[in-house]
Amino acid sequence: MTRFDFNIHATDGAARTGVIRMQRGDIRTPAFMPVGTAATVKAMRPAEVRASGAEIILGNTYHLMLRPTAERIARLGGLHKFMGWERPILTDSGGFQVMSLGALSKLTEDGVTFASHLDGSKHLITPERSMEIQRLLGSDIVMAFDECTPYPATRVQAESSMLRSMRWAQRSRDGFDSGIDHASRSALFGIQQGSTFEDLRAVSAAKLIDIGFDGYAIGGLAVGEGQAAMFSVLDYAPGQLPADRPRYLMGVGKPDDIVGAVERGIDMFDCVLPTRSGRTGQAFTHAGPINLRNARFAEDEAPLDATCACPVCKTNSRAYIHHLIKSSEILGAMLMTEHNVWFYQQLMAGLRAAIAAGELTKFANDFRAQYGAR
Amino acid sequence: MTRFDFNIHATDGAARTGVIRMQRGDIRTPAFMPVGTAATVKAMRPAEVRASGAEIILGNTYHLMLRPTAERIARLGGLHKFMGWERPILTDSGGFQVMSLGALSKLTEDGVTFASHLDGSKHLITPERSMEIQRLLGSDIVMAFDECTPYPATRVQAESSMLRSMRWAQRSRDGFDSGIDHASRSALFGIQQGSTFEDLRAVSAAKLIDIGFDGYAIGGLAVGEGQAAMFSVLDYAPGQLPADRPRYLMGVGKPDDIVGAVERGIDMFDCVLPTRSGRTGQAFTHAGPINLRNARFAEDEAPLDATCACPVCKTNSRAYIHHLIKSSEILGAMLMTEHNVWFYQQLMAGLRAAIAAGELTKFANDFRAQYGAR
Repeated sequence: MTRFDFNIHATDGAARTGVIRMQRGDIRTPAFMPVGTAATVKAMRPAEVRASGAEIILGNTYHLMLRPTAERIARLGGLHKFMGWERPILTDSGGFQVMSLGALSKLTEDGVTFASHLDGSKHLITPERSMEIQRLLGSDIVMAFDECTPYPATRVQAESSMLRSMRWAQRSRDGFDSGIDHASRSALFGIQQGSTFEDLRAVSAAKLIDIGFDGYAIGGLAVGEGQAAMFSVLDYAPGQLPADRPRYLMGVGKPDDIVGAVERGIDMFDCVLPTRSGRTGQAFTHAGPINLRNARFAEDEAPLDATCACPVCKTNSRAYIHHLIKSSEILGAMLMTEHNVWFYQQLMAGLRAAIAAGELTKFANDFRAQYGAR
Repeated sequence: MTRFDFNIHATDGAARTGVIRMQRGDIRTPAFMPVGTAATVKAMRPAEVRASGAEIILGNTYHLMLRPTAERIARLGGLHKFMGWERPILTDSGGFQVMSLGALSKLTEDGVTFASHLDGSKHLITPERSMEIQRLLGSDIVMAFDECTPYPATRVQAESSMLRSMRWAQRSRDGFDSGIDHASRSALFGIQQGSTFEDLRAVSAAKLIDIGFDGYAIGGLAVGEGQAAMFSVLDYAPGQLPADRPRYLMGVGKPDDIVGAVERGIDMFDCVLPTRSGRTGQAFTHAGPINLRNARFAEDEAPLDATCACPVCKTNSRAYIHHLIKSSEILGAMLMTEHNVWFYQQLMAGLRAAIAAGELTKFANDFRAQYGAR
């Protein structure tokens, strides 16, 4: 069985389309991974996530280590069995959320000490412990433990943070490889840091390549720098990483962020936006996002998006969904989330087809013109 | 097309099984109607409700008249189209919830004045207005507007309240019949009152029969009197109503309430228990209800109920559902609700089969022995 294999079928400018092959299934790229934070893509059954076209989902190490704990999930047969999702799962390292959600987090060379946001209990997460947790979960794509450099950062801060993340990348590699059974069927991705400094990104990429990973993530973006600054980094960062390995832009993003990042050579994405927006009343459409709480939808008999092929748009009006959301009905969150996840997967399918046809520029320009993006 | 037709296929003691035929579909009896208060059976898509075996659902006039309003639903093509449920819908009259949820409600011979629980706005609901609202919604089975006599009530209170409900029953009949288009394809049910007084129940039944309805509900029960007192009324009340018309016990109930009521001749039920319990962590099983919040389920790999045929029990463990509920995940409410609605529909299917086979006593006794009911 193939452990991890990436084949690029076509390129168009810097963009590529291909397939990642893993034991639990193929992942067509560019791919968007719905976020299943606490062992569930919120408000969706696994079969509904799969029906949207999603071939891989993301699980959050930080949340799962605290509840129900990685050890409990391991005793119950691993995350796939626990939540009923049979295809690949990528888990993050916990680093980003320890620092954004954990109270009183303290960073040392060893790792990060933090208090649980659930009950205040103290925890230490190190590169070695992160690898152990992701192994216990049964993750298919394991992320190296790193520090997501805050934005803005001075050059000195960014360099110091990046260099520590690179030392942690080596410890992650070593920790991952020591879990022989898991390493023999899973993949490990390194994470490039360096903030918005091109030379620091180059140093980070070189160090990661020297260690050697199955795929390479671009970290430290989508943290408040804005789309223009992010795209500036993406004009050079993907080219610093191996062309024959998947490139994963973590935590991105809005539909127009994704289109621009694909044009710049990114293969994988994850973001809470489609699911979280679904619960707060924002629906994505080809003409841009709309807020279903708005009274102008109260008697609108059109579907959320007339061009959408999702099950929600086949049978539900904006008027009905407006009513559900105004009434705080669970079904409102269910339908909105399902539509948004489908919207993202349809966007990815469109991007893949456009790259394969050598028509990405036209696709991207048409998308932006309709979506109202820059 | 048949407007409303009830055929009894078999009887077993006082119990009956048969089919109600209506333009929007057949309803096998005894039937349980999931409650879709605000134009949604909470946390379930219409197709999921249908897949459970449900052939009719209930909508709440009080909630819908306030939001999104009956007039808006009418402009949008009626409740069936609005919520995407194509089979029959029974609507209550609004009377019960006006008095339990509406603030400052004031009862006169004309009707009830109340303040909305949503925004405090003043409303008047009369028998005529209730018929108009249910017509605007497009209800298939319209309930007469009545007063649900509070419990306990003195004989004088119960008689006075019942007699007013009977005057309102005539006004409901007249109001319903004046909506010619709707009356030609819908059914109207009267509601027997009289609290726990057998002679008052007899007077109420006689008055309703004199007016003439398609079906007859037993109201004023499941309001705190307890199962023993309820069964005492059900020992005589169904026999006071026409044998060839459906008998509907409003707002009931727990699984063992339903079994005992079917044994006493009831054909239709509705209750929020399966859906509401699903959202608060209580699952129904053949061995009685269990609370999934309980820590003893944290590593329980069994399904909610090993004898259940529902989609939830096919693929989800108690451990996973425990985790979802402890984490306040929407999927927890979705799965628990789906299971509970299936549990009720499977119970009704079992009761129908047992009556058809002339084995209801054995079925009911076996059920109670396993369920731990009296």
